[in-house]
Amino acid sequence: MMHIRECIVSAPGKAILHGEHAVVHGKVALAVSLNLRTYLKLKATNTGKVCINLPNIDTFLCWDVSEVKHLMPCSRGKQMDLKHLDPELVKRLREFVGGANGNFDTSNMATLAFLYMYLSLFGSGELPSLTVSVWSELPTGAGLGSSAAYSVCLAAALLCASGAIPAPLKEWEHTARWCQEDLELINSWAFQGEMIIHGNPSGVDNAVGTWGGMLRFLAGRIIPLSRVPLLRILLTNTKVPRSTKVLVARVKDKINKFPTILTTVLDSVDAISCTCERVLLEMTCEPITGEHYNVLEELIDINQHHLNVMGVGHPALDTLCRVTLAKGLHSKLTGAGGGGCGITLLRPETDSSVVQTTIQELKDCDFDCWETSIGGPGVQVHSPLSVKEDILGILNRY
Amino acid sequence: MMHIRECIVSAPGKAILHGEHAVVHGKVALAVSLNLRTYLKLKATNTGKVCINLPNIDTFLCWDVSEVKHLMPCSRGKQMDLKHLDPELVKRLREFVGGANGNFDTSNMATLAFLYMYLSLFGSGELPSLTVSVWSELPTGAGLGSSAAYSVCLAAALLCASGAIPAPLKEWEHTARWCQEDLELINSWAFQGEMIIHGNPSGVDNAVGTWGGMLRFLAGRIIPLSRVPLLRILLTNTKVPRSTKVLVARVKDKINKFPTILTTVLDSVDAISCTCERVLLEMTCEPITGEHYNVLEELIDINQHHLNVMGVGHPALDTLCRVTLAKGLHSKLTGAGGGGCGITLLRPETDSSVVQTTIQELKDCDFDCWETSIGGPGVQVHSPLSVKEDILGILNRY
Repeated sequence: MMHIRECIVSAPGKAILHGEHAVVHGKVALAVSLNLRTYLKLKATNTGKVCINLPNIDTFLCWDVSEVKHLMPCSRGKQMDLKHLDPELVKRLREFVGGANGNFDTSNMATLAFLYMYLSLFGSGELPSLTVSVWSELPTGAGLGSSAAYSVCLAAALLCASGAIPAPLKEWEHTARWCQEDLELINSWAFQGEMIIHGNPSGVDNAVGTWGGMLRFLAGRIIPLSRVPLLRILLTNTKVPRSTKVLVARVKDKINKFPTILTTVLDSVDAISCTCERVLLEMTCEPITGEHYNVLEELIDINQHHLNVMGVGHPALDTLCRVTLAKGLHSKLTGAGGGGCGITLLRPETDSSVVQTTIQELKDCDFDCWETSIGGPGVQVHSPLSVKEDILGILNRY
Repeated sequence: MMHIRECIVSAPGKAILHGEHAVVHGKVALAVSLNLRTYLKLKATNTGKVCINLPNIDTFLCWDVSEVKHLMPCSRGKQMDLKHLDPELVKRLREFVGGANGNFDTSNMATLAFLYMYLSLFGSGELPSLTVSVWSELPTGAGLGSSAAYSVCLAAALLCASGAIPAPLKEWEHTARWCQEDLELINSWAFQGEMIIHGNPSGVDNAVGTWGGMLRFLAGRIIPLSRVPLLRILLTNTKVPRSTKVLVARVKDKINKFPTILTTVLDSVDAISCTCERVLLEMTCEPITGEHYNVLEELIDINQHHLNVMGVGHPALDTLCRVTLAKGLHSKLTGAGGGGCGITLLRPETDSSVVQTTIQELKDCDFDCWETSIGGPGVQVHSPLSVKEDILGILNRY
């Protein structure tokens, strides 16, 4: 039996702080890590089986290693080109996983991504017997990068297990991160997972999951920003279903209908992103003041109005803004809009009782709501001690 | 006793359809006539007295003609320059009217404007004995041009009484208007009244009161637009008091704080005004369709968001927008914002029951609300038959 390294890793979700939709039209967007994390435990076994447990989506699968080994194209060596998928391997895996009526649901997609990475990373040699268990704090399908967090965790754990990257955790450490070079490799493999799940991903979600903090995204280029402050937020899911494609098309139609009115608004959104980036940088170089937060709040309010102008608002999002504003808190939608999720900035001095009553009022609106933060670390490896007990319990259950 | 012509005249109020605040920063604004009108009846008397009755503001004054005659500077002939006030006459009238503690309230200002026009138009000859009675459907001090409507009525009636302009009403007509040249003269004299009441008026309000319809206002130039459709609206007064000066300063501060973010928004407002003007023109040249109204509604929504971005919104205005949107109707603030008034577009097919329940709900919010129209005629002269009975009753009471 081949020896592999066990590990627990986690990766954050993603929120768009400013620039959603505008980015489609060549403007800057700021993507930030969302500290609702996906945790993955990789356990070496001696059962001769490869198993994956995804309790969030009721997926519990096991295969004989020998059965899976046959799916590997014979001619294939180690994969070098990480910009494209191996079409032959994808084809074989799709047949093997076999979505009902050719429709691949979230569970099928997650399975495909796992088997693709497992075979690509180990398939040229002996396949190890192992169990991967994943638990995510992120809601799925809410535009919060849950699939990317999953792909990043898979890539980090499988690369680490295979020895392609080191195990960075020192004995006395609770958490550790990898060096830039290793993160690049993790990100490239996570992008493969995203390509399997999404078809044509922008690469932003896996980059945020890998690097954490904040990324500047402009015309397809992704630039991680070195330093950003950690910001307390509420993340609210209105649970109003929406289609990103429909919303992107709606904005495009509106631009075509009112070209001058809308392109100036997109320019204003661009200026909001640039102003926000500058303020966040200032907050890491100089003492943070109330005025920094005032500006961040004003930018949130202005952008929320602009997103309404683009036609991607929703009464549920108006409710979010109204409920939080009554508590002196400022909110905007994040991502595609038309429902979906919103973020609410909390100030350092915002009292915990205010936060708790706000969360309760939002839950009374039938929304899901979490107190969390943005700008936190990307993928990291954990000692079991550094994982919250309830999550560790779930990961150890399988 | 000198013979003068009696008449009943009326002039509309004013609403800003698009471009409030942006106009301060060199962008286009569209001002429209608001068909809440001010009515003025001028009656010749043989009492040797000159009297003014303004029941809206509890002002009922009478002077001996001989007493007033003394206020006229001796050297003065007929006033030719209508761009400036006669400082000597203003000084004498201010002493005569004498606001308490030197503070001139609405009543004092209205009296000043009346006496100034009366003396300027008649003072070089024999002063006629007459009574002027005014009733306005407009709330005062709500930014709806009530002082301009008053000044326009005064100018029209006194010019007509003096014979400077003809009495345009034919025997068989209910209402009539003056020709362009006469309107120019009325507008110039109304502007004098506005200078007395406001100090430094833009001239937009008296121009709307004179010409009606819609005016394009850009960098101090006022261009009456020949043809616009009459649009049904609700006019709502939130009764939240606000200071135009404070609000103008707030927008300026915001532009200084976020120059790029705000100037692009002002450009967008400019494009809204231009688009609206084009659509309204189309509505007078081609069959009016639902799509015309869809566009007008979208422009209203976008501009309301922009005004919020400029910082001149108010929770009461948000309530107006929410209440009307629940009925499928679209609203924006009009004028300075920060409270004050809003307009709600009604479609030709909007059912009267919807209008009535909407008005009731807005009144339940403690707002005043009127069903009226914009784009109607400017100053006109009326036969008594063409004046609503209740208004005629008020005008005839004195």
